[in-house]
Amino acid sequence: MKFAATVLGSGSAKPTLERLTSAHVLNVHEHFYLIDCGEGTQVAMIKHGIQMMKIEHAFISHLHGDHYFGLIGLLNSMHLMNRKKPFHLYAFCELEEIINIQLRVASTTFSFPLVFHPLDSSKTQEILNNKYVSVTSFPLKHRIRTCGFLFKEKKRARNIKREFVRKHNIPVEWFQRILDGEDYVDADGVKYSNDSIVKIPGVSRSYAYCSDTAYHKEVVDIIRGASLLYHEASFADEHEDIALVKFHSTARQAAMIAKEANVGGLMIGHFSLRYKDPQLLLSQAREEFPNTIEAVDGLTVEIGS
Amino acid sequence: MKFAATVLGSGSAKPTLERLTSAHVLNVHEHFYLIDCGEGTQVAMIKHGIQMMKIEHAFISHLHGDHYFGLIGLLNSMHLMNRKKPFHLYAFCELEEIINIQLRVASTTFSFPLVFHPLDSSKTQEILNNKYVSVTSFPLKHRIRTCGFLFKEKKRARNIKREFVRKHNIPVEWFQRILDGEDYVDADGVKYSNDSIVKIPGVSRSYAYCSDTAYHKEVVDIIRGASLLYHEASFADEHEDIALVKFHSTARQAAMIAKEANVGGLMIGHFSLRYKDPQLLLSQAREEFPNTIEAVDGLTVEIGS
Repeated sequence: MKFAATVLGSGSAKPTLERLTSAHVLNVHEHFYLIDCGEGTQVAMIKHGIQMMKIEHAFISHLHGDHYFGLIGLLNSMHLMNRKKPFHLYAFCELEEIINIQLRVASTTFSFPLVFHPLDSSKTQEILNNKYVSVTSFPLKHRIRTCGFLFKEKKRARNIKREFVRKHNIPVEWFQRILDGEDYVDADGVKYSNDSIVKIPGVSRSYAYCSDTAYHKEVVDIIRGASLLYHEASFADEHEDIALVKFHSTARQAAMIAKEANVGGLMIGHFSLRYKDPQLLLSQAREEFPNTIEAVDGLTVEIGS
Repeated sequence: MKFAATVLGSGSAKPTLERLTSAHVLNVHEHFYLIDCGEGTQVAMIKHGIQMMKIEHAFISHLHGDHYFGLIGLLNSMHLMNRKKPFHLYAFCELEEIINIQLRVASTTFSFPLVFHPLDSSKTQEILNNKYVSVTSFPLKHRIRTCGFLFKEKKRARNIKREFVRKHNIPVEWFQRILDGEDYVDADGVKYSNDSIVKIPGVSRSYAYCSDTAYHKEVVDIIRGASLLYHEASFADEHEDIALVKFHSTARQAAMIAKEANVGGLMIGHFSLRYKDPQLLLSQAREEFPNTIEAVDGLTVEIGS
C-alpha cells in the first residue's frame, strides 16, 4: 500500500526553471492529498505524473503567494475538465474570499463542490479523519498565521492473505475465527498456522510538513516519531540572523527539530536563492541529523514506517 | 530598432507542458510591454530570456484566469527583487481588488508603485502614448468584458547618420539645416547629398492583439493595416457552432478578420485542446489568409512594417 510524497515545488519565494514554489502531493493508498500549491503546480502535476482529478483534499499552510498562487488555476482546470467530485480545501478563511472574487469576475461557477474547511492556527487539531489517514494541523511560527500538517496513516486491519483465500475454499464461518487468531484446519484436517495465513498490518506511517516556520521547538511533541519530516531550510548557518528576522529556519535548525522529534527521515527544501548549490545546507543539516535528503522537483519519496 | 513580439503562452484555457496560457511580450526599442499574463508567465520569462524587471506596462485583456493568473506571482517576484520602478497595469478594475486582497492577507506592500489604469470595454480609446508607442484598447466580443489592444510604433524622427557625425566635424549650426533637408557642404567645399547622410525613418510598425473574441467585424477598421495581428483561433470549421456559443473564433474567422483588415501577417493561437495538432487550424486559416503563422511558446516574431 502506497504512502509516498512527491515534491512538485521545492523552491522558496520566487520560482526558477529548476525549482517551482512549494507544492507536495501525498499518496496514501492511491488517495491523493495536495499540500501547498505554488504557481505552476498544475503543469508540474502533468510533468510528474500526478492526476489532478484524483486530488481529493488540499492543505494550504499559509497565505504567502509561493504557497497558494497555483491553486486558483488548478481549481479552474478541474472545472474545465468537468470535475464532479467534491474538492476539500483546508486553508485560512481569506482564501475562500480570494477564490470567490475570481470566480465572480469570470462569471464562473465551478462544476464541482468546493468544500472549504477553515484552519485555526491557534491550536493543534485533527482536521480530517477518514478510512486511510488522519490529518492534524498545528501552529508554526511565521510572519503571518501558518499551520503545519501531520498525516498519519490509519493502522490497517488484519486480513487473511488474498492468495490463501483464492486457493482454499474457506467456509464463511471460519473467516472471523482466523481473524481472531485461530489456526485454520481444512476439511482434510490439514492445519495452517494463523501467522502463515494472516497479513499482519505494518506500523502506520506518517508525514509531517513544516513550512514556512522559524525554529519552533513546540512542534517537536506533535511530530514526534514521524516517518518523514519535511521542514523548510531557507538559510545556512551564516545567515541565522536573517532567518530569525524573517521567521524562517536554517538547515541546521530543521535538523535539530528532526533529531529532537526522533523522526525517521528529514527532507529539506525552500532554500533561499542566494545559495547556488544546496549542498552547503544539506551538509549543515546532516551534521545534526544524518538521514537528511534534499527536496527536488519531481522527487517521490516512498515513506517507510 | 526592435519591434518584436515574443509568445510566452500560446495555449487556451488549460495549460499543458507544451503550451502555457496566454502571455505575449512586445519589445518596442528595448522597452517591454506585457500583454496578458497566464499562470507560469514569470518562469516562461526566465526560459525565453525576457527580463521581468524591464517590463514597464502590462495589459490584461479580460479576467478569465488563463489571461491573468500569473500576474500576481510576477508582481510578487518583482517585489522580492526589490523593484523600485513603477509598474503600469491596464486592466478591468476588479483586478485591482483581486491584487489588493492578496497583498492584504500576506501583509505585503509592494516595493514599487503599481499604477492601475482601468480599462473601458465600451469604447475604443488611446490608453498609453509615450515616446515609443501609442496603445489603443478596443472592445472585443466575448462572454465577459474584453479588450483588444493595438500597439503602434511612433514614427521615428529623421536623424543624421551616426557614422557621418563621428567622421566629420560638423559645425553645430549645420545640424538643423541638414535635418531640414539641406545638403551638407564641409569646410573644404565638399558636398554631401542630404539623402546620403540622413537616416530616413521607416514606416511605423504595429501589433494588434485580439484574444479572446468571437468573430467580430467591428475590429477591422481599428486594426486596419496592422503589421502583425495576433488573433485567437480556438476552433476549426467543424466546430464553428461551439465557437459561436462560447464567444470564440474559428481559425478561418481569424483569417477573415486579417484579410478584411489587410494586415501584414497573422499569428493564431489559443487552440482548443481537442486538436492534437494545430496544422488543421493553420491550413483553414491559410485558405483565407496565406501569411498566417502558428503561435508557439518561446517564438519571437520580428515585426516588419
